[in-house]
Amino acid sequence: MTAAEEFLGKDIAELDTPALLVDLDAFEANMRLLAGCCREHGIAWRPHSKAHKSPQVARLQLEAGACGITCAKLSEAELMAAHGIGDILIANQVVAPAKLARLAVLQQRARVLVTLDNPSVVPLMGRAAVAAGTAIPVLIEVDIGMNRCGVLPGGPVLELARAICATPGLDFRGLMGYEGHVLELQPPQAKVEACHRALSLLIEGRDLLQRHGIPVEIISAGGTGSFRITAAYPGITEIQAGGGIFMDAMYRHTCFVEDFHYALTILATITSRHAGHVIVDAGFKTMSAYHYPPQPLGREDLKLRYLSAEHGVFDILSGPGPRVGERLRFIVGYSDSTNCLHDRFLGIRRGKVELVWEILGRGLLT
Amino acid sequence: MTAAEEFLGKDIAELDTPALLVDLDAFEANMRLLAGCCREHGIAWRPHSKAHKSPQVARLQLEAGACGITCAKLSEAELMAAHGIGDILIANQVVAPAKLARLAVLQQRARVLVTLDNPSVVPLMGRAAVAAGTAIPVLIEVDIGMNRCGVLPGGPVLELARAICATPGLDFRGLMGYEGHVLELQPPQAKVEACHRALSLLIEGRDLLQRHGIPVEIISAGGTGSFRITAAYPGITEIQAGGGIFMDAMYRHTCFVEDFHYALTILATITSRHAGHVIVDAGFKTMSAYHYPPQPLGREDLKLRYLSAEHGVFDILSGPGPRVGERLRFIVGYSDSTNCLHDRFLGIRRGKVELVWEILGRGLLT
Repeated sequence: MTAAEEFLGKDIAELDTPALLVDLDAFEANMRLLAGCCREHGIAWRPHSKAHKSPQVARLQLEAGACGITCAKLSEAELMAAHGIGDILIANQVVAPAKLARLAVLQQRARVLVTLDNPSVVPLMGRAAVAAGTAIPVLIEVDIGMNRCGVLPGGPVLELARAICATPGLDFRGLMGYEGHVLELQPPQAKVEACHRALSLLIEGRDLLQRHGIPVEIISAGGTGSFRITAAYPGITEIQAGGGIFMDAMYRHTCFVEDFHYALTILATITSRHAGHVIVDAGFKTMSAYHYPPQPLGREDLKLRYLSAEHGVFDILSGPGPRVGERLRFIVGYSDSTNCLHDRFLGIRRGKVELVWEILGRGLLT
Repeated sequence: MTAAEEFLGKDIAELDTPALLVDLDAFEANMRLLAGCCREHGIAWRPHSKAHKSPQVARLQLEAGACGITCAKLSEAELMAAHGIGDILIANQVVAPAKLARLAVLQQRARVLVTLDNPSVVPLMGRAAVAAGTAIPVLIEVDIGMNRCGVLPGGPVLELARAICATPGLDFRGLMGYEGHVLELQPPQAKVEACHRALSLLIEGRDLLQRHGIPVEIISAGGTGSFRITAAYPGITEIQAGGGIFMDAMYRHTCFVEDFHYALTILATITSRHAGHVIVDAGFKTMSAYHYPPQPLGREDLKLRYLSAEHGVFDILSGPGPRVGERLRFIVGYSDSTNCLHDRFLGIRRGKVELVWEILGRGLLT
């Protein structure tokens, strides 16, 4: 019996806990919304796959209209390419010679774009491609205000683009930026303005390069926290918003994103009960509080006190609270920090497991 | 080629990053210290295996003198029993009927003690054992001041012990408590006194039960954060301290434990470099900051700014800072929240991989 067969067709009430559930109706509506938003604006959807790390989910995204996917790590890109995903962006720097050699070879299976933000890497990457007899397609990562990765706008972008264009084995394709610093801004108009300021740096970069005869095909940006603003910005050619397919409490409460349905929950069981609090069998190894805490679903009477490794401790705010053995669901705090703790998603429709998606990219950190 | 063969014999400089490394000399010294401390006090060492989730490491602990191991989840106990570990304590409540049935059957492979803290579970557990034709050995978890799990000391302990003793299929063996609320207390004498107060509740519970004719064989307590105090306390029969085998920054800086050597590090590579900060290829999916942040090893010039999912952002405090491609090591912040993110430990001696321990319990959350 495969892992999937063990779960398929089971009623939620029969599932062992804790378990990571996906409401398939909500998930599919979220996918349609993201794909539709991109279509409407005439741009491509290249969803980041870091929150699912599952080739099965990536395939569903392609079927829904994605042009390809985004990955955070080379090993994730290798997994996705091995499962037939043909167009991948590693939205991260790959710098070690051994990794560059793998990246060059990987081009034989899929188009795998990668970002660059340091001139010292250019010759290493070029040599790796030449050695493998391939070409590596490259985006320059531009720091558009987040102050994490990326070259500064203006001169450094031009200088790096020229170096890439002059290097055999490298194929300059465009620019990438991440407007992660604007996601939590309020009021909404302030967020829109800050996002526009950030994205304008990419467009100015494009114009600068084109004035110098360097064509810019791709301008990639955008996460779930700003997807509508970024998708609508003139000149952006693709957005990477991926987490919206699951939705989570962080997107709603810190990024003020209200477009999506909550699709992702943790099913858990009350294992212990005391004056004023209960314990569930899901601690921080099951539902991370990293970036945002999990929320009891439909239980106004419970509030997170803290998470131990394997105990979730919830205060009973009113009434008798749940009894030992009772099962609850929790809206995931941040899908990205929670899903990487699990082996699989259980896709639920009408109360039963309809699909099982193995998180095959789990543990692929290199 | 198995996963282990891919790594064995490699020099650290050849390893892909990020990687989870164990300094074997430090690890073995830590094991000897923990086992020796227990021997010295005439008590058993039942190390918690939640921080390694590896049957290979559990076997090494048994070879070093452990009487058995502790687990947090039934699925971990099943894994350990399947790998020949014969004496296991699940230091947690198991309450769902389907899980109780598995726990009862598991007794055919190993002695698997479990804790109980609610009378409503007693008949369910008893019926599961009778149905399987086994007996389930039980410890009562007592709340010794942490206010997480456990029945209150005194009357409730006696009442629950009587219910267990009166239930066919259950085999009452003793008491368990966790003095987790004293670990961070200072000055040292205040911690010792609070720890003694907590442990005295277990001993009083033992005396109460014995006065009522109920023999108490096991009194189990103690984590790494208080192992010396708890091991020395009269009446304690075993301690569960496990994390000390790896040691981490949390034990040192929040629990003030100085007995162990740092054995656990994350090997990472600088992937991006900017005015004032660098990025490493290890974010919160590789080295959790949950409970304590990772510490750059031997790099006074770097300080954690924040961890994204796959980017670790470190401020350069002085000097030029590391270059792109340079490799660094980080002392793990909290071993328990970091190890569960990885597939394996690479055991290092004299700069080379000597052992590979697969983290087979990773993802076993049920």
